[in-house]
Amino acid sequence: MNGYVQVYTGNGKGKTTAAIGLTIRALGAGWQVFFAQFLKAGEYSEHKALARFSDNLTIKTYGRNVFIRGEPNDEDRRLAQAAYKEIVEAVTSGRYRLVVLDEANVAVHYDLITVDQILDLIERRAGDVELVITGRYAHPRLIDRADLVTEMQDVKHYYDKGITARVGVEK
Amino acid sequence: MNGYVQVYTGNGKGKTTAAIGLTIRALGAGWQVFFAQFLKAGEYSEHKALARFSDNLTIKTYGRNVFIRGEPNDEDRRLAQAAYKEIVEAVTSGRYRLVVLDEANVAVHYDLITVDQILDLIERRAGDVELVITGRYAHPRLIDRADLVTEMQDVKHYYDKGITARVGVEK
Repeated sequence: MNGYVQVYTGNGKGKTTAAIGLTIRALGAGWQVFFAQFLKAGEYSEHKALARFSDNLTIKTYGRNVFIRGEPNDEDRRLAQAAYKEIVEAVTSGRYRLVVLDEANVAVHYDLITVDQILDLIERRAGDVELVITGRYAHPRLIDRADLVTEMQDVKHYYDKGITARVGVEK
Repeated sequence: MNGYVQVYTGNGKGKTTAAIGLTIRALGAGWQVFFAQFLKAGEYSEHKALARFSDNLTIKTYGRNVFIRGEPNDEDRRLAQAAYKEIVEAVTSGRYRLVVLDEANVAVHYDLITVDQILDLIERRAGDVELVITGRYAHPRLIDRADLVTEMQDVKHYYDKGITARVGVEK
């Protein structure tokens, strides 16, 4: 079976959670999964639950959780490039059947990695690797190359009422 | 903390997987979760993986997996009403902090349950219950009542190339 490239983008809630859901489905089918998170650091609630699958799932975070409020700096670039290097290793190793690049679109948007690097990764991956790429601002060239693209549109969000991120729901 | 009502609708891939991701996040935070699936039957890959959380997660399927290709009949209506009854019990019991109604929008669309039943459920639930409702065709009155609505838009889908549902990715 061939692997495909799935992209989840847009300004609505549900992109990372969809990638987690796909991870659960893949794990249930006995797949090995590599889940890379750009820009994020620390332990979210999902990490605690996903720890039960440490035999088949590798999760790595490569970020500082901070620059979103400011401008990215050299340290953010260094972390994103380190992520990229490990992801290349994961997609070419033959070890993983599903590889998730969470928030990679945002990393491209801020020039922490380039869209050419993403496209190169797609071409170089082992043939049966399913790639899932999330984050706002998906690059048009990635959309063009992807096999499946869903845009999560924010129709209504409780953030607009001043409700902030909650443990168990957003983090 | 109050619970909110989240709706994931639209024609794109990612609605049920987002609900699974939210479930994983909630489980990681120690919440008890009730996950009800209208219209679906049988064991999907995600059920196998989620079985590891049977101490904190109840999953129920209430459907025949068949009517989607035809017209719903009295048996589909009976199953959906049985689902509704159990969901009312779950949201009023105080046992669950997150309750998912997967494909409930489709059940409403096909008149297996009514939008008034969904709105009544929202009002009757214990105050801290977070409700997640998925499926195409979300009813305008539910959208109006919901605290968060994301529309998953199908920008591009590999189904259009003739690729059918795959174990580990769609089921």
